[in-house]
Amino acid sequence: MKKVSQDFVKDITKREVDFAQWYTDVVRKAELADYSSVKGCMIIRPTGYALWENIQRFLDTRFKETGHENVCMPLLIPESLLMREAEHVEGFAPEVAWVTQGGQNQLAEKLAIRPTSEVLFAEHYKNIIQSYRDLPKLYNQWVNVVRWEKTTRPFLRTTEFLWQEGHTCHETIEDAEAETLRMLEIYAEACEELLAIPVVRGVKTANERFAGAANTYTLETLMYDGKALQIATSHNLGNNFAKAFDIKFTDRNGELQYVYQTSWGMTTRTIGGLIMVHSDDRGLVLPPRVAPTQLIIVPIAQNKPGVLDFAYQLQDQLKEADFRVKLDDSDKQPGWKFNESEMKGIPIRIEVGPRDISQNQVIAVRRDTGEKISLSLENLDVKIAELLEEIQRNLFESAKKRADAKTEYTEDREVFNQRIKQGGFAVTPWCEDGACEEKVKEDTTATARCMSFENNKEPVESKVCPHCGKEATKIVHWARAY
Amino acid sequence: MKKVSQDFVKDITKREVDFAQWYTDVVRKAELADYSSVKGCMIIRPTGYALWENIQRFLDTRFKETGHENVCMPLLIPESLLMREAEHVEGFAPEVAWVTQGGQNQLAEKLAIRPTSEVLFAEHYKNIIQSYRDLPKLYNQWVNVVRWEKTTRPFLRTTEFLWQEGHTCHETIEDAEAETLRMLEIYAEACEELLAIPVVRGVKTANERFAGAANTYTLETLMYDGKALQIATSHNLGNNFAKAFDIKFTDRNGELQYVYQTSWGMTTRTIGGLIMVHSDDRGLVLPPRVAPTQLIIVPIAQNKPGVLDFAYQLQDQLKEADFRVKLDDSDKQPGWKFNESEMKGIPIRIEVGPRDISQNQVIAVRRDTGEKISLSLENLDVKIAELLEEIQRNLFESAKKRADAKTEYTEDREVFNQRIKQGGFAVTPWCEDGACEEKVKEDTTATARCMSFENNKEPVESKVCPHCGKEATKIVHWARAY
Repeated sequence: MKKVSQDFVKDITKREVDFAQWYTDVVRKAELADYSSVKGCMIIRPTGYALWENIQRFLDTRFKETGHENVCMPLLIPESLLMREAEHVEGFAPEVAWVTQGGQNQLAEKLAIRPTSEVLFAEHYKNIIQSYRDLPKLYNQWVNVVRWEKTTRPFLRTTEFLWQEGHTCHETIEDAEAETLRMLEIYAEACEELLAIPVVRGVKTANERFAGAANTYTLETLMYDGKALQIATSHNLGNNFAKAFDIKFTDRNGELQYVYQTSWGMTTRTIGGLIMVHSDDRGLVLPPRVAPTQLIIVPIAQNKPGVLDFAYQLQDQLKEADFRVKLDDSDKQPGWKFNESEMKGIPIRIEVGPRDISQNQVIAVRRDTGEKISLSLENLDVKIAELLEEIQRNLFESAKKRADAKTEYTEDREVFNQRIKQGGFAVTPWCEDGACEEKVKEDTTATARCMSFENNKEPVESKVCPHCGKEATKIVHWARAY
Repeated sequence: MKKVSQDFVKDITKREVDFAQWYTDVVRKAELADYSSVKGCMIIRPTGYALWENIQRFLDTRFKETGHENVCMPLLIPESLLMREAEHVEGFAPEVAWVTQGGQNQLAEKLAIRPTSEVLFAEHYKNIIQSYRDLPKLYNQWVNVVRWEKTTRPFLRTTEFLWQEGHTCHETIEDAEAETLRMLEIYAEACEELLAIPVVRGVKTANERFAGAANTYTLETLMYDGKALQIATSHNLGNNFAKAFDIKFTDRNGELQYVYQTSWGMTTRTIGGLIMVHSDDRGLVLPPRVAPTQLIIVPIAQNKPGVLDFAYQLQDQLKEADFRVKLDDSDKQPGWKFNESEMKGIPIRIEVGPRDISQNQVIAVRRDTGEKISLSLENLDVKIAELLEEIQRNLFESAKKRADAKTEYTEDREVFNQRIKQGGFAVTPWCEDGACEEKVKEDTTATARCMSFENNKEPVESKVCPHCGKEATKIVHWARAY
């Protein structure tokens, strides 16, 4: 038999002691990902990949409902093609992996492994768009990309990552803007409804914009340690790429016009955020809607007659009711099974022992609160479904409460510095001067995360930028970020 | 308005004139794929990708039902890792794309873009398998791979292609063999039930085996032109990789043993096969079960009052009944719409005009036979469902009939040569001598496609190999192949 520690959760570093090490411990021990022999590239293990599949299914369904079609562009981009849009290449060239040899031959032109695919889509769109009748083009692809990162961490920042990238073309800038915001809202739904992660919706400052975009919208979230994570972005590209790639169409008046474009993406990084928002010192905590396994049945005294039979029957019944359920009938001790299911973040553990069976009940244990609840077998499906929804709601509300407690509006430089030091969002008026933004970053390592929609509904009037003393025109969320 | 030819199917080269050009024309005109700026890499367009998604869904469901889990290994393989299993590297090294530069730096060790992932899985399995309790490990991944091909064709042979690769570990060679055959049968189901492609199940000759495998099983199919296509393979790897990578486990008797492994894959090449089996001089023909769009509604005299309203209502009703249906309400002429829907292989066109509406009927036109059928609106859903199944069945049976007519058993060298020249499978006794096999290939360009299960149920007795005159021990399917 494999040797295991009875309470192996003790092997996880405590969150308060070393958050980074805690994170890595959870990723490894919950078997979400493993290191590979290429620095910065991870192996996504079954539970990690099942999380990604659930996120994919949620997004892909909504993409299709809103008229998008999936395609697949090549992995490789010729150097000359990548160089076509000036700002774009400046942003991406430093972190590109280059293929220089194919088979036995040196290549005449080196090929980039896509760090993102704007140029490939632009070249294709130039070929397939002629008239306003061909618009809008609403394409998406689910692919891997490579960015040669110096410092990497599983899910959060990896040399190779998985994502979807949407790329669309429109007749007018207004259509492109509406699309950009529509997709941001779908990402926000994924965060809030599926992943129980509250987000701040906003627009990036010019300095933080995507390379080549006219405007970048973002969802920003606070992790348990108070650092911010950008969890999805949606870009209005204007006609920057259309001009660089000459993507023109005949409009409704018979005039040749450049198309307006958008691009938007969500990545496996989201899984890093999911871990850092909800999990605890006992391991992973997963919201039921995204959890690959929602229920684990653990038989108590499983050698006693009838216990395993009862457990199998219960498993069948719960499967039938469309729950994602597993039964641990291995010969490990129940205590070990409890620890393992907690480590893996399974939302509800269902214990069934001889006494429960004789009393026509089971014991449900919530992963989020540890609470033990006796549930009679009558209408068990309904009760379990309610309990799962209650856990989903509680995780969202707890995360929201933590984020709210760490979000502070201030016009005072000292309060700002204090908040940044403690972790969380410091929300301040700002002058929109990129040099001022740079200075804040140098002084505090905080970056402008976004100008939130919520805080910028009205124009800012009679406010001073606390960082430089100039007139303020926007309200900005600042934070140290991943 | 975009200029279009009224009968643009005339632009397709006829199958009998130039099959290769016909194939390319269909791929381009049905908008399945387009060329990209990297030689040999294609852009998979919405219809092509939707076909792949339908194949994925079919397979992935069955993989999960049989206990497999999805994972994702890195895209890149260090040279030293790829070199670990001798036969494997000999098979793949000549066609690898190499990354030599990451960001601004020359890499110390060059990295292969995965041509397949046996070595990555082997390294991971070595880390995660200790005991028989960890077995079987049944992993799969849906990814892209790159093989630096000299001659390429969309779907059929591309430098980059999409596939799934299953990689499993087992306690015994018998378990590995059972898995290998189980997965081959799932592929056969995908071909026959989803794609309406009849297949020959068999085992590869030693010469044609996967590099590093103990045994390779294959599905072989005949295209319309009589050339064969290998549409899926499943490999029993024995313990070749386990020995090269030292993947050991403690067995039920406490002894250290090497694991037994399998790997199996199906690729976007399948879509090439799908095209070449069913399509015709009017364009793509798709079996209803895999068709992204099953029904297209074309209004006739759509400016007449009530026609479009009726068409929209019909579309809603058919969507409700879970058909994949589209309505072409553009201002193009009906004749243009007919041609386009035929080009795109939509199984049934539904015509609705004023007269049909007044008679409470629609006209259904079958893509496979061209037959026009009046259908009263009563129980229309049921009739359409039956018609789709009838088309599915007819496509399979027609393909089977064509393949059977081109499959010929012979023990005569002249008949063999004739059959190979005409196209199709020549089935002959064979001596199992690799040199004899090589000679046949040199003389006729036919290769040994497989030793079919069907023809090798009994040991071969008192037969002579018609190719070399030695004693025959197997019955082999030979053909010129893609």
